[in-house]
Amino acid sequence: MEYVFSDRISTLKPSAIREILKATSQGDVIPFAAGNPAPEAFPVEDVRRLSAEIFADDPITALQYGISEGYTPLRQVVFADMQKRFGVGTADDDIIITSGAQQVVDLTAKVLLNEDDVVICEAPSFIGALNTFRSYKARLVGVDVEADGMDMDKLEATLRREPGAKVIYTIPNFQNPSGVTMSWAKRQRLYELAKQYGVMVLEDNPYGELRCRGEDVPAIKTLDKDGIVIYSGSFSKILAPGIRVAFTIAPKSVIAKMTVGKQASDVHTACFNQMLVYRWMTECDYLGHIAKIRDNYRERLDLMCGLIDEKWGDFVTYVRPEGGLFIWCELPERVDMLGFCRAAAERKVAVVPGTAFLMQPTDTTQCIRLNFSTPTREGIVKGMEILGEMKKDY
Amino acid sequence: MEYVFSDRISTLKPSAIREILKATSQGDVIPFAAGNPAPEAFPVEDVRRLSAEIFADDPITALQYGISEGYTPLRQVVFADMQKRFGVGTADDDIIITSGAQQVVDLTAKVLLNEDDVVICEAPSFIGALNTFRSYKARLVGVDVEADGMDMDKLEATLRREPGAKVIYTIPNFQNPSGVTMSWAKRQRLYELAKQYGVMVLEDNPYGELRCRGEDVPAIKTLDKDGIVIYSGSFSKILAPGIRVAFTIAPKSVIAKMTVGKQASDVHTACFNQMLVYRWMTECDYLGHIAKIRDNYRERLDLMCGLIDEKWGDFVTYVRPEGGLFIWCELPERVDMLGFCRAAAERKVAVVPGTAFLMQPTDTTQCIRLNFSTPTREGIVKGMEILGEMKKDY
Repeated sequence: MEYVFSDRISTLKPSAIREILKATSQGDVIPFAAGNPAPEAFPVEDVRRLSAEIFADDPITALQYGISEGYTPLRQVVFADMQKRFGVGTADDDIIITSGAQQVVDLTAKVLLNEDDVVICEAPSFIGALNTFRSYKARLVGVDVEADGMDMDKLEATLRREPGAKVIYTIPNFQNPSGVTMSWAKRQRLYELAKQYGVMVLEDNPYGELRCRGEDVPAIKTLDKDGIVIYSGSFSKILAPGIRVAFTIAPKSVIAKMTVGKQASDVHTACFNQMLVYRWMTECDYLGHIAKIRDNYRERLDLMCGLIDEKWGDFVTYVRPEGGLFIWCELPERVDMLGFCRAAAERKVAVVPGTAFLMQPTDTTQCIRLNFSTPTREGIVKGMEILGEMKKDY
Repeated sequence: MEYVFSDRISTLKPSAIREILKATSQGDVIPFAAGNPAPEAFPVEDVRRLSAEIFADDPITALQYGISEGYTPLRQVVFADMQKRFGVGTADDDIIITSGAQQVVDLTAKVLLNEDDVVICEAPSFIGALNTFRSYKARLVGVDVEADGMDMDKLEATLRREPGAKVIYTIPNFQNPSGVTMSWAKRQRLYELAKQYGVMVLEDNPYGELRCRGEDVPAIKTLDKDGIVIYSGSFSKILAPGIRVAFTIAPKSVIAKMTVGKQASDVHTACFNQMLVYRWMTECDYLGHIAKIRDNYRERLDLMCGLIDEKWGDFVTYVRPEGGLFIWCELPERVDMLGFCRAAAERKVAVVPGTAFLMQPTDTTQCIRLNFSTPTREGIVKGMEILGEMKKDY
């Protein structure tokens, strides 16, 4: 049979990038292309104990159907924690638990976007979110990212040019892929612009807890007196991604629509997984665990940046991230970026070509994305040696 | 702020039905309106042991990111099991693991449907699936269900009238809500019609293993020489719904697109949950467990049907199901069906008004849906006594 697929799914074509990544998925490849948390960052002992407790104390709740909003005790404790620690969430907001933060992007698109609606994204931005917006046939419009976040003059110009824009999508902390953190001044301006132009903001913050240096910058959501910010947080980077538990805090009527949307997507997030997070937050020293992860990632980030400076100091330029998982390196103009990624793959080092993170297939960049949480420390050293040597071919 | 939601989500409005169900969600209500498996049907001891094993033997696989297709050992064992036990799945098919069978409907819609495309459904049909199709702005066209399944002459007439139809959606075994099982002759005819008119079939089979009487009827998918059937199976009713693990077996190119779609929805189904199902299938007597569930549900079905015959013999008509979870009762013409459901709710018995399962808000029915897996045996007896007494008001 000749299959006729939907227009939406046909826009998500396998790309040259995917092919490069495929070629580097073998076990002997140094995975600078991945985005996995370091396995030693998982609280395995806690998880062992808590899962035994859950299936001893309350197995039926863990195994029976749950409600689409999520496990009520988890919703309450996360909401209270986000209010207390970050000032996120007001009396006009509500929370639902999602199957990973990817689902927050999906539900945002589902409840807000009609086909051809405009989503304004940072350029570059997270490929997973871009593909979700594409799967709703949204039109992606990019705004350049500077060393302190999105270029606000360009954002304003874009809002003026695109009066039908529905959502501004931003990753304000340790942005994927650029590693950049948006300044407080820019967050305030972004909020004011969104308000002025009647556009919702999706503030995606999976990496916010992974700060290695400097001071936290308050979330855009802390400014939300007008009910225009959808805040997305995740347990993937601080507990474990394989459990697929994240959440969104947003205005009540948005959450109500998202709940209807979630019911049509996957009914609810798995109960055991939500109970595990709840017990972790209420019975374990989760703040102590987050502090340990930060120490781990600080050491890895310093190792990687030190090696980039040493091996590539005269070759690439980059903004040193204050946290997160990624470093975004710009190759010299003379270098064929895609060819460089291919050559690295042949030498068993996987990096992501920066074009993966752009809005249009015709957009170009000299940047590549490196990850320092997935490889071992030895892998970081060996991988940077190999990349360093490649320099002399250009 | 005045929120402007997407057209797709605005079509999913809270309805009179939802209000009735809400009024009956209190703890003291007899839940004939639910669809939960009986809690005593969960293999709690197995789950306890297996979860301890998983977090002892292989915690990192359980906690780290997985691939969108699903946990490879689970995919292999389910595919082999489905081939061996049911003849489902050929060399041209592939399998992905999904977050519940609701996600199979969602992914089918995502990869096959453009807005306004027609989906042909049994009338009545599962409200969850109907809402998912609605969330893609599909146009639902119903074909009446008879005592042996969809009316095939009407299906053919519908296919002739709707040349752009993309999908026929069917629940062939113990259909939700009608309880009806499609005959083998009708399955063959449905397949031939789908082939002739170039329409894909979504065969949703969450209840197939819950047969209490009679012989299994082969799946439509066993006829699939042409690559037109998407088969959906689930562990919700035989292991536990709270873990949210289901699967779909479909032609390879459809699965490839679904995988891209799933990546944009929730990246992958939680790893621990998939590993749990894998170990349950390979280390436990899962066929013995399924046999026990069937015994449990046979007893409940017989209890409920006996009471309906006794208390309501001269009041309702129904087709006695050979399995599944639901009984579909038709009230006399003189009875106001919605009013009856409201009156039952006031007497603390929750039933679902049949209009919930129809395509259009203007469609009418005299039927209500009763569930016998969620209430206790005492609840079944007490609930049917109350419903029986209500008869004299009409």
